[in-house]
Amino acid sequence: MQHPPLNVFSRRRSLVQKKISRWGVDGILLADICNIRYLSGFTGSEGLLLASPEGVRLLVDGRYTAQARREVCGIPVFEFADRLEGVEQAAAKMRLQKIGFEPLHMNVSDHDRLIRRLKNVNLIPLGEELRMLRARKDAAEIVLMKKAAAIAARAASGLAEALRPGWTEREAALYLEMQARQGGAEQMAFETIVASGENGAFPHAQPSCRKIRHGDFVVVDFGVRYQGYCSDETCTFAIGELTRNQKNAYRAVKRAHDEAIAAIGAGAAAAEIDALARRTLGKKYSRYFVHGTGHGVGLEVHEAPRLAPTSKDVLQSGMAVTVEPGLYYPGLWGIRIEDTVVVKKNGCEMITSMSKDLITIE
Amino acid sequence: MQHPPLNVFSRRRSLVQKKISRWGVDGILLADICNIRYLSGFTGSEGLLLASPEGVRLLVDGRYTAQARREVCGIPVFEFADRLEGVEQAAAKMRLQKIGFEPLHMNVSDHDRLIRRLKNVNLIPLGEELRMLRARKDAAEIVLMKKAAAIAARAASGLAEALRPGWTEREAALYLEMQARQGGAEQMAFETIVASGENGAFPHAQPSCRKIRHGDFVVVDFGVRYQGYCSDETCTFAIGELTRNQKNAYRAVKRAHDEAIAAIGAGAAAAEIDALARRTLGKKYSRYFVHGTGHGVGLEVHEAPRLAPTSKDVLQSGMAVTVEPGLYYPGLWGIRIEDTVVVKKNGCEMITSMSKDLITIE
Repeated sequence: MQHPPLNVFSRRRSLVQKKISRWGVDGILLADICNIRYLSGFTGSEGLLLASPEGVRLLVDGRYTAQARREVCGIPVFEFADRLEGVEQAAAKMRLQKIGFEPLHMNVSDHDRLIRRLKNVNLIPLGEELRMLRARKDAAEIVLMKKAAAIAARAASGLAEALRPGWTEREAALYLEMQARQGGAEQMAFETIVASGENGAFPHAQPSCRKIRHGDFVVVDFGVRYQGYCSDETCTFAIGELTRNQKNAYRAVKRAHDEAIAAIGAGAAAAEIDALARRTLGKKYSRYFVHGTGHGVGLEVHEAPRLAPTSKDVLQSGMAVTVEPGLYYPGLWGIRIEDTVVVKKNGCEMITSMSKDLITIE
Repeated sequence: MQHPPLNVFSRRRSLVQKKISRWGVDGILLADICNIRYLSGFTGSEGLLLASPEGVRLLVDGRYTAQARREVCGIPVFEFADRLEGVEQAAAKMRLQKIGFEPLHMNVSDHDRLIRRLKNVNLIPLGEELRMLRARKDAAEIVLMKKAAAIAARAASGLAEALRPGWTEREAALYLEMQARQGGAEQMAFETIVASGENGAFPHAQPSCRKIRHGDFVVVDFGVRYQGYCSDETCTFAIGELTRNQKNAYRAVKRAHDEAIAAIGAGAAAAEIDALARRTLGKKYSRYFVHGTGHGVGLEVHEAPRLAPTSKDVLQSGMAVTVEPGLYYPGLWGIRIEDTVVVKKNGCEMITSMSKDLITIE
């Protein structure tokens, strides 16, 4: 299996280590398992990483000791019996007195217990400082994300060829997932959504036993994971002949999707991309668009930045973000069209590859 | 689709509402999506639930409004644009001044922001009070857990029949998952582990491209989700002839598994079940058993109680717990044998159903 070259991790760590003193702390404690993977290559489901300008340590429990030592290069791995005791010992060895942490990834219980344990240590929340840690993807990451998207696209093309009226949503989801897994996906990146007819009006519908039939829109939101990296994409298929209203609505969503993507580039305000999608939908449609326009994708399927009305994020080159306008008519149907792109200095590059022209299945 | 009868949710809510004043608060704010599902039937991925002795409210964002109103009966659903603003408004309407919350399911960032928003309100952590909320399963839950386990067992039997030396771990995992999904599983409950030969020494190995071969143990840890409820079970298959050491080790793990299950019953100390498994393994083996003996299972694959050396939990009737001793020899192989049982007044009842006698695949 290909893995990101090992020096990728040490380069990422150096970049972070250089910022630590600028953040007003002498070390950071990471609990977000994706941040830990990003900086170390450790692929387990739990662990802690302590970093100071002088050094980095990975702390894991007994289930993961052997695995971590195999996967991680250049930093020592310590096994703990009790997680917070492990932090206490490592912080003492590293002589840390002001430790920054991820306030979104530390729960109130752990925080209270750590404060009691780490007597002469201050815990400083580094929300904004760490939020964008993984937002700008490096070349090694883009390679993996494109690979994930390519596997996903082949699976979705397979579904588009095989799908017939009479299939249930669950059968369609399972077919797509089997194609993706046989095509090399590690796992699906999230639970595949196949939402037909009136179920399409639920943006996060779970595949049901409803049979797909003529006149339906079928919203298929799917992503695969490849070496940890996610793809995220949504196609809305037409089953047989649509009404004029349905066709017009699809065109409106497609236009919003295209315009938003055309406006993406380094320096663009995320909220402005969202606003543009809404403006393009226009008065007639925009009140049926009940979620944000997009989000970052990477080791997590939802990560920074956010493309939504209240977002203060500014797009930077290397960020990988979705653009996914949709319309949801309760009791009738739904449409969503979604691609993932990488922000470039001027414009962006598509990562996902299924055509978003209306695909009709007879 | 069969669903738990609706009065199940209102009964669960009443039980909780009666305890609220005993907990020294006048309302509770739940963010754990499994607790929310348990009390309301809402199956979305995000939401908040506020409960007082007088009433209960479910708060969701625009993606989930229609779905929540369809799924939830007997409590009002409110849509929020901003989550914490939603809490602020609901708490004011419900006149709450002391709100209990789940300290393991509220992050430091939300907690800080809530404190600033809810001026004349105290936030009280209810860790112990809420930790066991879902631990004792009711009859409706046991039905769903048995259904999940039955689907999983059929899939695993299918794998045991089909598996041949030369398959990769990934092929085996995919085969099992396809069988499970075609057999009615909503999703897998967690990423299936298929760990053969030396990979078996990693308790949480991910399926790799290693080919399964003669002389291997193959650890297969699998679970399916059915209407939200998880199964959790591990078989270790033998491929062809094993060494005497391997056979003795399997027998030792099986004995530890059997003895621990035989000791389970209402009133037993969880730490004592764990200690018994270790004692039964004996000096020769127990230092290769690097994780706890078990954990609760339900809407989450890992939930309360914990069967581990440091656990203070006492088993109560209705709790569904795993028993999963294992041995991990770095560089050589691993064994794990796991079943899920429901605690009864005297003894316990098996939920999972694959035989744990050694299955040999030629």
